[in-house]
Amino acid sequence: MATVKLLTDADASPEAREVFDDIRRTRNTDYVNNSWRAMANHPAMLKRNWEKAKAVMAPGELDALTKELIYIAVSIMNDCEYCIHTHTHFARGKGMTEAQYGEMLVVIGLATEGNRMMTAMQVPVDERFKV
Amino acid sequence: MATVKLLTDADASPEAREVFDDIRRTRNTDYVNNSWRAMANHPAMLKRNWEKAKAVMAPGELDALTKELIYIAVSIMNDCEYCIHTHTHFARGKGMTEAQYGEMLVVIGLATEGNRMMTAMQVPVDERFKV
Amino acid sequence: MATVKLLTDADASPEAREVFDDIRRTRNTDYVNNSWRAMANHPAMLKRNWEKAKAVMAPGELDALTKELIYIAVSIMNDCEYCIHTHTHFARGKGMTEAQYGEMLVVIGLATEGNRMMTAMQVPVDERFKV
Amino acid sequence: MATVKLLTDADASPEAREVFDDIRRTRNTDYVNNSWRAMANHPAMLKRNWEKAKAVMAPGELDALTKELIYIAVSIMNDCEYCIHTHTHFARGKGMTEAQYGEMLVVIGLATEGNRMMTAMQVPVDERFKV
Amino acid sequence: MATVKLLTDADASPEAREVFDDIRRTRNTDYVNNSWRAMANHPAMLKRNWEKAKAVMAPGELDALTKELIYIAVSIMNDCEYCIHTHTHFARGKGMTEAQYGEMLVVIGLATEGNRMMTAMQVPVDERFKV
Amino acid sequence: MATVKLLTDADASPEAREVFDDIRRTRNTDYVNNSWRAMANHPAMLKRNWEKAKAVMAPGELDALTKELIYIAVSIMNDCEYCIHTHTHFARGKGMTEAQYGEMLVVIGLATEGNRMMTAMQVPVDERFKV
Repeated sequence: MATVKLLTDADASPEAREVFDDIRRTRNTDYVNNSWRAMANHPAMLKRNWEKAKAVMAPGELDALTKELIYIAVSIMNDCEYCIHTHTHFARGKGMTEAQYGEMLVVIGLATEGNRMMTAMQVPVDERFKV
Repeated sequence: MATVKLLTDADASPEAREVFDDIRRTRNTDYVNNSWRAMANHPAMLKRNWEKAKAVMAPGELDALTKELIYIAVSIMNDCEYCIHTHTHFARGKGMTEAQYGEMLVVIGLATEGNRMMTAMQVPVDERFKV
Repeated sequence: MATVKLLTDADASPEAREVFDDIRRTRNTDYVNNSWRAMANHPAMLKRNWEKAKAVMAPGELDALTKELIYIAVSIMNDCEYCIHTHTHFARGKGMTEAQYGEMLVVIGLATEGNRMMTAMQVPVDERFKV
Repeated sequence: MATVKLLTDADASPEAREVFDDIRRTRNTDYVNNSWRAMANHPAMLKRNWEKAKAVMAPGELDALTKELIYIAVSIMNDCEYCIHTHTHFARGKGMTEAQYGEMLVVIGLATEGNRMMTAMQVPVDERFKV
Repeated sequence: MATVKLLTDADASPEAREVFDDIRRTRNTDYVNNSWRAMANHPAMLKRNWEKAKAVMAPGELDALTKELIYIAVSIMNDCEYCIHTHTHFARGKGMTEAQYGEMLVVIGLATEGNRMMTAMQVPVDERFKV
Repeated sequence: MATVKLLTDADASPEAREVFDDIRRTRNTDYVNNSWRAMANHPAMLKRNWEKAKAVMAPGELDALTKELIYIAVSIMNDCEYCIHTHTHFARGKGMTEAQYGEMLVVIGLATEGNRMMTAMQVPVDERFKV
């Protein structure tokens, strides 16, 4: 149960509907997912987030799949159920194999344990690792 | 100031010193950094973590740089000062450009904001994104 | 499914039932919500938390709605499903408009992204911002 | 020690320098703080963040001080040293009294403890608190 | 809905099935729980995690129940629904009384509030508390 | 640098000074540490936190050292530098051996990695582990 209504096209403001249309065009799909329908309650937020997502997730210095992996890692650390499901699905759509998925999880496990050990013992940064 | 002594080679147990030596061999360097010198207070922990790190961070289904980027993303989310400095340094050593670094940060920013918006509004996962 | 029973009035100890009664009186309602019924398994915890909540959330130097907004922001950051639903409901009861809700979410989004960027780059605090 | 150089006006790109100038104009000050000088290494990130911060933190449905309080609350939950110092300083500049500061901290303390208790016992949301 | 299939014995690889068998033997039960059936998609991860869990959770310098309490505390702080349910169940199986459970929760509440207050006010560590 | 003054006995209000005196009596020491001197800026917060800490950390159903271990585990998960140093020091004062410390760290490492793996794969709780 969301804390806001998930707005249908009929319920959404014209400004929000325009974003819905751009999502459909950009992704070449009829489907507008719940995240955008929730944000449509706050059209300026919707527009800013969509424009940003579109720009940021496009291939650039990093390829699209690497970006998805980073997105998933962050979503796991923030424990965002919606985002974990959505972006794991997206990553598979962009070619993530199950073996790559498994390796990413293992790196996350290694890092998160290592992070906590360093924090627990308050280990100071070696001089040579500072810029 | 760490909560434990950072053990020199002279202070470390033979079991810990063996790990130090393997770190030097594997990384082809004379330098053993503080994380291992802290863990050397608990030799079994040191050995397990080093063996695991060596296996996990090696190139496999994902290349070594992609693994470093995931490691950095997790470290930022856990706010681990030691790990952020160390692995940003390592990533540069493995070829991360400043433009790639900037893109990774922007993806992290997008994801962490998106995560919190979905959590705030408790948006339910679309049926189609469940396996 | 909670890890403890949600105690009815009949199941609760006399000490817990007294707190239930005070909740009803203070809030002018018949309804005692699940958080208190869970804490009733540990009556001293229940009493201390209720007394504190009653004192802390009352209008003081900050008005009651501002306090609810801060409570919601913290609950989102801790990813507490129970607390997000409850306190978003309470904030609306205390007059939060949908436009205010949207603005709060946008501030949270800005802050959480900004926080992670500063942490990622380990930016040192400007001397002038220290007390 | 940041992981990037804090760019002076001389070092920054023309695009970044323009943002610096807008910061000076908007805030009516000569001082550009470290957060922007760090982001200047990635001019597009700098520009997007500054434009967003300027828009989001301006008084709207919520007044400027309430927005700062929410910003501080998020920064505490993310444990961002830079952001805690900076925005506590900003909030005082916008009129936050020490008594208001103390009350905000107490609300944060109440919320974060309550959050963890609900999570610990996995308390289900009462039907009536769902929209 | 998990992001991977929970593998039955029939679906699992021989390597994974061996771990399943060791879980059954070690715990003297027929039941292999979902965590292992999820990890079985990545057999090396499954094997490493099971070996480690078996070694780490056995009584040593700390008794088995104390270890479970620490495990639960961490799981609450990471907001891991699966782990909270599982390890609260395990702790009860190892003799945790409801009174002990209540006390643990109260310590967690005290600590998490205290942590955030110190972070909020950026209180420096007293010289005498550094090693 | 704290965001508030660390109040000396001379600077503190009579109400705060009374708490300082009770800390000295209870702990049988002359030393009042920085956490209380920071909270003294908000005397009601100081009094409530001290009374609670005194009651909660006393031996009860759990012994004093087990409580300290739980406190440390939470502080590590919240990344509270002040609290990690202080309570690691306190735990040693209450008899924590280096071997116990090492085992606690290893349990924290196991738990935090396990938590993130379950979250990553969104593993559903087994029916039998729900109360």
